[in-house]
Amino acid sequence: MPLRISFLRSLFILLLGLGAAGAASAAVSSLDLLPRPSTVLETEGRFPVDESFTVGAIGDPGDRARRAADRFLERLSGRTGLFLRRDDSLPEGGESRASFVYRCDRAGALVPGEEESYRLTVSPDRILLIAPTDLGILHGFETVLQLLKGGPGGYFVPCVQIEDVPRFPWRGLMIDSGRHFQPVDVIKRNIDGLAAVKMNVLHWHLTEDQGFRVESRIFPALHELGSDGRYYSQAQIRDIVAYAADRGIRVMPEFDIPGHSTSWFPGFPELASAPGPYRISRTYSIQLPAFNPGNPNVYAFLDAFLGEMAALFPDPFLHIGGDENNGKHWDANPEIQDFKKKKGLADNAALQAYFNIRLLEILKKHGRRMVGWDEILQPGLPRDIVIQSWRGTEALVEAARRGYAGLLSNGYYIDLCQPAGEHYLNDPLPAGHGLSAEEAALVWGGEATMWSELASWETIDSRIWPRTAAIAERLWSPAEVRDVDDMYRRLEIVSIELEELGLTHLKNRDMMLRRLIQGTAIEPLQTLADAVEPLRGYKRHSLGKVKTTLAPLTRFVDAVPPESSEARLFGRTVDSFLAHRDAGSAEALKMILETWRMNHDFIKPLLSSAPVLFEIEPLSRGLSEAAEIGLEAVEALGHKRKGHRTQAAARMKTLAELKKPLAELELAVVPAIERLVSATIGD
Amino acid sequence: MPLRISFLRSLFILLLGLGAAGAASAAVSSLDLLPRPSTVLETEGRFPVDESFTVGAIGDPGDRARRAADRFLERLSGRTGLFLRRDDSLPEGGESRASFVYRCDRAGALVPGEEESYRLTVSPDRILLIAPTDLGILHGFETVLQLLKGGPGGYFVPCVQIEDVPRFPWRGLMIDSGRHFQPVDVIKRNIDGLAAVKMNVLHWHLTEDQGFRVESRIFPALHELGSDGRYYSQAQIRDIVAYAADRGIRVMPEFDIPGHSTSWFPGFPELASAPGPYRISRTYSIQLPAFNPGNPNVYAFLDAFLGEMAALFPDPFLHIGGDENNGKHWDANPEIQDFKKKKGLADNAALQAYFNIRLLEILKKHGRRMVGWDEILQPGLPRDIVIQSWRGTEALVEAARRGYAGLLSNGYYIDLCQPAGEHYLNDPLPAGHGLSAEEAALVWGGEATMWSELASWETIDSRIWPRTAAIAERLWSPAEVRDVDDMYRRLEIVSIELEELGLTHLKNRDMMLRRLIQGTAIEPLQTLADAVEPLRGYKRHSLGKVKTTLAPLTRFVDAVPPESSEARLFGRTVDSFLAHRDAGSAEALKMILETWRMNHDFIKPLLSSAPVLFEIEPLSRGLSEAAEIGLEAVEALGHKRKGHRTQAAARMKTLAELKKPLAELELAVVPAIERLVSATIGD
Repeated sequence: MPLRISFLRSLFILLLGLGAAGAASAAVSSLDLLPRPSTVLETEGRFPVDESFTVGAIGDPGDRARRAADRFLERLSGRTGLFLRRDDSLPEGGESRASFVYRCDRAGALVPGEEESYRLTVSPDRILLIAPTDLGILHGFETVLQLLKGGPGGYFVPCVQIEDVPRFPWRGLMIDSGRHFQPVDVIKRNIDGLAAVKMNVLHWHLTEDQGFRVESRIFPALHELGSDGRYYSQAQIRDIVAYAADRGIRVMPEFDIPGHSTSWFPGFPELASAPGPYRISRTYSIQLPAFNPGNPNVYAFLDAFLGEMAALFPDPFLHIGGDENNGKHWDANPEIQDFKKKKGLADNAALQAYFNIRLLEILKKHGRRMVGWDEILQPGLPRDIVIQSWRGTEALVEAARRGYAGLLSNGYYIDLCQPAGEHYLNDPLPAGHGLSAEEAALVWGGEATMWSELASWETIDSRIWPRTAAIAERLWSPAEVRDVDDMYRRLEIVSIELEELGLTHLKNRDMMLRRLIQGTAIEPLQTLADAVEPLRGYKRHSLGKVKTTLAPLTRFVDAVPPESSEARLFGRTVDSFLAHRDAGSAEALKMILETWRMNHDFIKPLLSSAPVLFEIEPLSRGLSEAAEIGLEAVEALGHKRKGHRTQAAARMKTLAELKKPLAELELAVVPAIERLVSATIGD
Repeated sequence: MPLRISFLRSLFILLLGLGAAGAASAAVSSLDLLPRPSTVLETEGRFPVDESFTVGAIGDPGDRARRAADRFLERLSGRTGLFLRRDDSLPEGGESRASFVYRCDRAGALVPGEEESYRLTVSPDRILLIAPTDLGILHGFETVLQLLKGGPGGYFVPCVQIEDVPRFPWRGLMIDSGRHFQPVDVIKRNIDGLAAVKMNVLHWHLTEDQGFRVESRIFPALHELGSDGRYYSQAQIRDIVAYAADRGIRVMPEFDIPGHSTSWFPGFPELASAPGPYRISRTYSIQLPAFNPGNPNVYAFLDAFLGEMAALFPDPFLHIGGDENNGKHWDANPEIQDFKKKKGLADNAALQAYFNIRLLEILKKHGRRMVGWDEILQPGLPRDIVIQSWRGTEALVEAARRGYAGLLSNGYYIDLCQPAGEHYLNDPLPAGHGLSAEEAALVWGGEATMWSELASWETIDSRIWPRTAAIAERLWSPAEVRDVDDMYRRLEIVSIELEELGLTHLKNRDMMLRRLIQGTAIEPLQTLADAVEPLRGYKRHSLGKVKTTLAPLTRFVDAVPPESSEARLFGRTVDSFLAHRDAGSAEALKMILETWRMNHDFIKPLLSSAPVLFEIEPLSRGLSEAAEIGLEAVEALGHKRKGHRTQAAARMKTLAELKKPLAELELAVVPAIERLVSATIGD
């Protein structure tokens, strides 16, 4: 009777959902704001939102704020179904009689450290938003949308006084368009996502061994031979930069040199350290090709190219990468060795420092400040470069001590499918950093980094969202805001809100499951998908099948989101049951486990006509086995039967086996089942 | 116990799904091709698709075919999860040893009537695709993707010999970007959808009273004052035209004049028939503004503008609209009346014919043939214009008799939410048309027309797909292919295939339901959505709340797809039950009806915090009531109890009430319930 599955699945979700709601009651605030503002004072009453709702500016707020107000109204109308006045200007002097009045003094500049604060007062008869710059206004609009609630009497905004200001000035997301090209609409909707959680930088990784993604009119062979035709035209880049600026988001381009540069060389082999010929790299191992730092033409070329890019990207910062150049082609080239000697450069690090100093002159000429990965921090580099740290907070703190501004990315590698809670607690300025206030101010913030070895246009949103919102809160909110459970509660709400911007992190899962079976009866696959997680860290890179850019990213593992809410809530229900041994939790667990136990029977018939799913057969069977063990344990604990040690040990051994990777996934629910089995002995 | 809902829903879908599969067994062929090819011969055996699969061309197939081969491999890899060789060229002379070999003689021109045929032979050891032009190759790739199947032994293509050629040379989709702007990615993914079902024209309706959507560099006030900033840049248009051409799709632009032209006049009021000033229209009633045909500057302006557009759109045809100019501004303008008299023009139709003849000269100068709606067919117009008929096949046949080429759109208005089966049986050349072969050849085909009063970027895909695939089959396949049930069977399969192109027709429904409740527990909403349909025809336009372009298109009615598969299958199950009175159907119907009966109890709690859903409360209650009546009838029929006439009449009256529109929707399942109740008396 294959139908029960959906019934049980629903129960499962419902019960866990209630669990989550239960947890919420213990939360700091009933508001769902994410990131949490610096100070929030909840006051009495509600501001009702109905079709009389209007927005008006006092004074001239500027075009950016006006367009943001229009988008605000469109989203508000979309969520509420209210037919709001969006077109007609308010009557002369009517701004101040609008339901929602905002005012700012000037347009904010898109530079780190610009004023972004805002003050929001919601009282029963009006909403007032005041900010020094329009950037604060944009943030305030997002806050009001997050405050919106519905009730039997209609929509409303709870009364509140908010004073809000970001903790760090640089709150970014890096998107790697090099390894997998990400079309324009992907970039745009992610810019909208950033704005929704008050982030302010898109760091755009545009060149890689696997692809050169920018049109160069000066050197067209770069994108023509380096991209398989998958690049952004200059018109598209201008469009995206303007789109981002309109949302208060800076776009900092990255051109990764001297390493990670294979895709530059099919068109320009003479600039490389080895003779070539070159082809775009298809694999993901670290590539050897690198620019030849001893070749004077390299600097003339980079001068012309970076000048062209500086005209395209107005941001005052330009990222030159600088990471993971292993120097083997340098070592193998006698001319480069001679050059090194001649210049008195002790090693390849010194040679790269030389290269960077030359590059620095070029960037200065074009009015850009240099940003680079840890490796660029070498003796001789001036204090106005910015270090982005993939190595960690220690490197960052050390750089700040030496007077360098820095950004944290270590711990924010969202492509590695780690839980949001881990990213959330990763602080660019951890307690006990030991820096003076002045030094600490050099830690400018951080960036979530979305490398794209394993992310296509279909899956990248689900690798970025909603977990990046947790990082957004770390970078915006006061350091003391660290309640992981409350963050997760709000994350599920913001995840729904992000969908209205076109983000596909939720909806593409079912689309991909439908493709796998070429049909709509995906319920058993959903149940399995809810109980598993892709391998974390670099395990999928090393153990998995995907080794090239042309490999399909359409398998079950790609459809599964990085973090399973269900597994997390199941774990919490288990812990609650083990603490209280209550019949309610026991029943809930039994229903859940029974769902999982039976699911394999409903998966099996789907497999016969979907060879792409053969690989999940053992995984699905494993879920069934683990669930059976879990059921036995819950049963035993319910009857207060003391477990048999030998039997428990055998079960634990089975569970340990079941934790092993299968089809590049792990059964995320097994650790909680292990706790159940352990408890049968401890009882 | 709110959980049963999902259980029952699953049962419901499963049973109806089985019903559909049952129907399939009676179908003409076991293949799922849509559109069905001219001739198909199924032969013995299978061609296995595994990781050794390669594609190779014999001779030089040209870049378009090569890129199509790469996209073919990418989609094949995506569906199967197979790691296919996509990059490395085959070894010298190895093309002929590829698994899949194709050959064409030349690149097809993007003009109506170009050779598009192909011949496909799948044998156990190779696939061979031969076509006179690369356009045939592109069609053949789509056919192979539709042939792909999976089984316990892996993926395969069943052996088959196909000779395929389109019935009509012009198979189009019109997208209205005027009333609601549709972003670039919407247009691109719909172009991919067209190619997947072998359509070949995107007719792009770019100007309307509500918006002027093209950048004009000669007259920037057109897009600057006519679009709210929502227009396509020339770079974007070039990109889209190239994208379409690469997929064998022509892009024919439409600039609707002399009426439907309000948005031209904020920038150029002096060209209108009334003094202005003008603003973009926000409402959908027919607008009065029209070009002034007596003003010589109008022709100079249109000459310059259409010249600019001809440079942008290479298609040899240009659509000038010409519809629904009601002439009131002409009548009210004494100068225009004088002009009419001076030129001896009897009425406004003659005046519009004069305008069109002037326009024709301009188009000829720019090397374009004129296409227009029925209204342009006036005395004095030469035979090289093309008539697009919103009036119907009679007008089309009459035009052909008079020597004019024509396209059918009447009956293909997909924005009106009619069932696919109705569009499907609508033939541009209906039986008994009485035309000679030569005249009949003037009926070039037809176009699905997607007007966008009620379609946003979020919903337009679901209004277009999958129903447009039924029209694609009508225009491609032999006239005798008319099995509606078999079409529906294949439509559900092609609908899944269309998702891989990025189309959102399936996935946006759940996204929109989540937004309505700001949560994920949407099952009861899904159940209701499956049982209802948006009002058909112009009922939603007249009875509904949406009267302006700024109204939200995010309500429940917008989330619901135009046609309910569930209602159709329920109706078929009812008919099958009434014919056979079998216990199986009775049980299925009871489960389904019980699901609907109970659903309202699960909808109710969702409503309290989602005021946007208040409007569906009576609809949901109505479903429950109708289901209760249906259950009673099935019960009575099962026990062969004769129904009571008075009681049945009361039930029929209730059901008639329940058929009335609510929240711009109808309960699509009520007619079948009426048949059940009727049967209780007839028994």
